[in-house]
Amino acid sequence: MLPARLTRLIHLLSRLPGVGEKTAQRFALSMVANRELAIDLSQGLHDLAEFIRPCDVCGNLAEISEDGDARCQICLDQRRASALLCIVQRIQDLMAIERSGAMRGRYFVLGKLLSPLDGVGPEELPLEKLRARIQSDRISEVILATPTSVDGEATALFLARELEALGVTVSRIASGIPHGGELEFADQITLGRAIDGRRSL
Amino acid sequence: MLPARLTRLIHLLSRLPGVGEKTAQRFALSMVANRELAIDLSQGLHDLAEFIRPCDVCGNLAEISEDGDARCQICLDQRRASALLCIVQRIQDLMAIERSGAMRGRYFVLGKLLSPLDGVGPEELPLEKLRARIQSDRISEVILATPTSVDGEATALFLARELEALGVTVSRIASGIPHGGELEFADQITLGRAIDGRRSL
Repeated sequence: MLPARLTRLIHLLSRLPGVGEKTAQRFALSMVANRELAIDLSQGLHDLAEFIRPCDVCGNLAEISEDGDARCQICLDQRRASALLCIVQRIQDLMAIERSGAMRGRYFVLGKLLSPLDGVGPEELPLEKLRARIQSDRISEVILATPTSVDGEATALFLARELEALGVTVSRIASGIPHGGELEFADQITLGRAIDGRRSL
Repeated sequence: MLPARLTRLIHLLSRLPGVGEKTAQRFALSMVANRELAIDLSQGLHDLAEFIRPCDVCGNLAEISEDGDARCQICLDQRRASALLCIVQRIQDLMAIERSGAMRGRYFVLGKLLSPLDGVGPEELPLEKLRARIQSDRISEVILATPTSVDGEATALFLARELEALGVTVSRIASGIPHGGELEFADQITLGRAIDGRRSL
């Protein structure tokens, strides 16, 4: 019933995360009515594929330079503490930490977590790259900011042990009651962690 | 913090219907990880802008032909009853009716409904185009399939009066309890319409 080109486009749009057939169709129809947006988006996506890739050093998003390297804004920023390294799972986590303004060092994006259930073992983590980075950048402190989920905790524990031999200080982000949270509604594990991780005042 | 090209792309993506800043960012990041999808989508959107536009006759989606015309599959299908015309508000409504398989005639997409609150008056409806279509195609029966909302009903009533003079049979789609619906949970207006619109068996 639909033109073949449109069916193909709807199929492609439905491969975006969280987008089903119906939403993809809605996107496509809205762009038939707004041809300019389709043209601008086409150009923007072309540029994304051409000029954006993960930073060669840390995995954050970066523009590809003329000589083919990709260095992100954070790695290029000389005012950043270069001996302090924060390890995160995803770029989104890095962006969340940056918004908090609490991190003055640099980052390392793991890309994945240990996950026995999904068959992700230690050999799939970029350990060699991480070790090389710690040594070449003379990192003295590592903050493990993987999620506080089962996989995130397991990965943090694993990394802490692996990095011990390199003589760096390793810490884990705090887990507890979120800001403004009611104790009454906190789950047992969170509450347990809040008590265990108490700080003297 | 993000490369400028990426920020621009996220802004464009957030102009898609129902997409906010967060979702747009998620789309963009997923395509950094899947460069091929970005390239395919870029091409698909370019093709959309280049080759797809509303059908010149009915407003359904159509591919632009080599001589610059756009005729949809339904208008090109000679087996369709050409004297039966179904008037809908949007292309999505046309597609829903097509899926039902209950319509063997052709369509006319209005594009908008009368809406005093939004300042849409009769002069914004494509009345001239509709009249010309009815006369040139020798339409004998018109089905008004605008929504059963206040604006949709008002538009249907208005069109019924306007088309009276052309000597066509005009009908309105039935309003009542949906298939499988419980009377207990139907709202009063729907139930009232179901009773008013009863058919002898």
